[in-house]
Amino acid sequence: MLSHFKVVLVETSHPGNIGAVARAMKNMRMDQLRLVSPKCFPHADATARASGADDVLRAATVFDSLQDAIADCRIVLGASARDRTISWPSLTARQTAEKWVGALPEQNIALVFGRENSGLKNHELDLCHYLLRIPCNSEYSSLNLAAAVQVVCYELFVGSGQEIISKVGDVGEEPLATAEQMEAFYIHLQQTMADIGFLHPERSKSIMRRLRRIFNRTQLDTKELDILRGILRFSQNHNAE
Amino acid sequence: MLSHFKVVLVETSHPGNIGAVARAMKNMRMDQLRLVSPKCFPHADATARASGADDVLRAATVFDSLQDAIADCRIVLGASARDRTISWPSLTARQTAEKWVGALPEQNIALVFGRENSGLKNHELDLCHYLLRIPCNSEYSSLNLAAAVQVVCYELFVGSGQEIISKVGDVGEEPLATAEQMEAFYIHLQQTMADIGFLHPERSKSIMRRLRRIFNRTQLDTKELDILRGILRFSQNHNAE
Repeated sequence: MLSHFKVVLVETSHPGNIGAVARAMKNMRMDQLRLVSPKCFPHADATARASGADDVLRAATVFDSLQDAIADCRIVLGASARDRTISWPSLTARQTAEKWVGALPEQNIALVFGRENSGLKNHELDLCHYLLRIPCNSEYSSLNLAAAVQVVCYELFVGSGQEIISKVGDVGEEPLATAEQMEAFYIHLQQTMADIGFLHPERSKSIMRRLRRIFNRTQLDTKELDILRGILRFSQNHNAE
Repeated sequence: MLSHFKVVLVETSHPGNIGAVARAMKNMRMDQLRLVSPKCFPHADATARASGADDVLRAATVFDSLQDAIADCRIVLGASARDRTISWPSLTARQTAEKWVGALPEQNIALVFGRENSGLKNHELDLCHYLLRIPCNSEYSSLNLAAAVQVVCYELFVGSGQEIISKVGDVGEEPLATAEQMEAFYIHLQQTMADIGFLHPERSKSIMRRLRRIFNRTQLDTKELDILRGILRFSQNHNAE
């Protein structure tokens, strides 16, 4: 789905960073990696840091020049932390996602990341249509290469709407208690508090209101409600002995 | 501004990762780092990977237990990629930012990140109010520790509204051309095209409309307009010779 985005790394010095980039990409379902004159590649450090994303690494294509690497791309964005003296249209990672996540698959878009220490040179930025910006601390704005790729890919992934928010935390979840079940619980709770001598009849209303507020807020599921009512029953029986 | 957020790393194995986390935090103007029983700290690898964020590293506090590390926190979020069998309220990084970036400074909020290989244990998650989730590829969901911290801190930074989008690209920028200046340019352009014999009087209207569309879209500044009109003048003179 995000395969029209090509991550292009220019003259990366440390092979470990290439591996970390591959991992960052795969974490966000991206797999199109292009390398322009990497210092050392392939390399054991790259494979180690890729940590399970070695398929992305193996499929990476190596180019001699940035021009070759972006030849088939219609939009080219160059990541840049530095202020440039010439005005240049820029997009944040999020704006990039909003603009192009839904582009046609044949609409190749290059995301170009420069060297670890010095970024992209001006003649390389001349090949870019936009500066790609990651909002950050203006006094300490140089992100680690893989961290920058991670943030950009994350925004593209979020923008693609592939995430299924509800999945985590829902495993084995019981249905929420109905209002009727909650009312039965409140009656049981009130009765129990009377049984154990906690509830003064005069103050019962305001206490019950507070308790309702607590338990309504927690959105109990049916299993949890069963547990609470079990506790109430034991409390009633204990009192009865 | 984001100092009420405490990044808490539990039993980190590789000191390099602690350094990378410090860098990721400082990139996003965060500086509150807490370490629970790190394997090796301080360590040269941590300082090397911190790469200029050693102030964050030096200020980090070390604790013997997670309980101690979060003692003064009112909200505790535990980062978790794994699905848990028990239902647990979860928030994405972005939701966390929306909910608490504007919280009072004394409202300490812990962002707890587990071990590189195994994350947080269940008894540690019991101390958390929410699972902190980073949307990602469900088939390859384990982010590098520093990458996870980077994404979360990035969302908090963006949520804090500290970024100044307009800054990059505006350095040295000239004022945009006024509509009047643009009209003068179009007249000059049309005249030049007539002078060089390009413009057929009959088709002049539709060609001019296309050219207007091009140049209006590019939002020329006054300096760029000067350059273009200079080219037009030379073109006219060349034709005249």
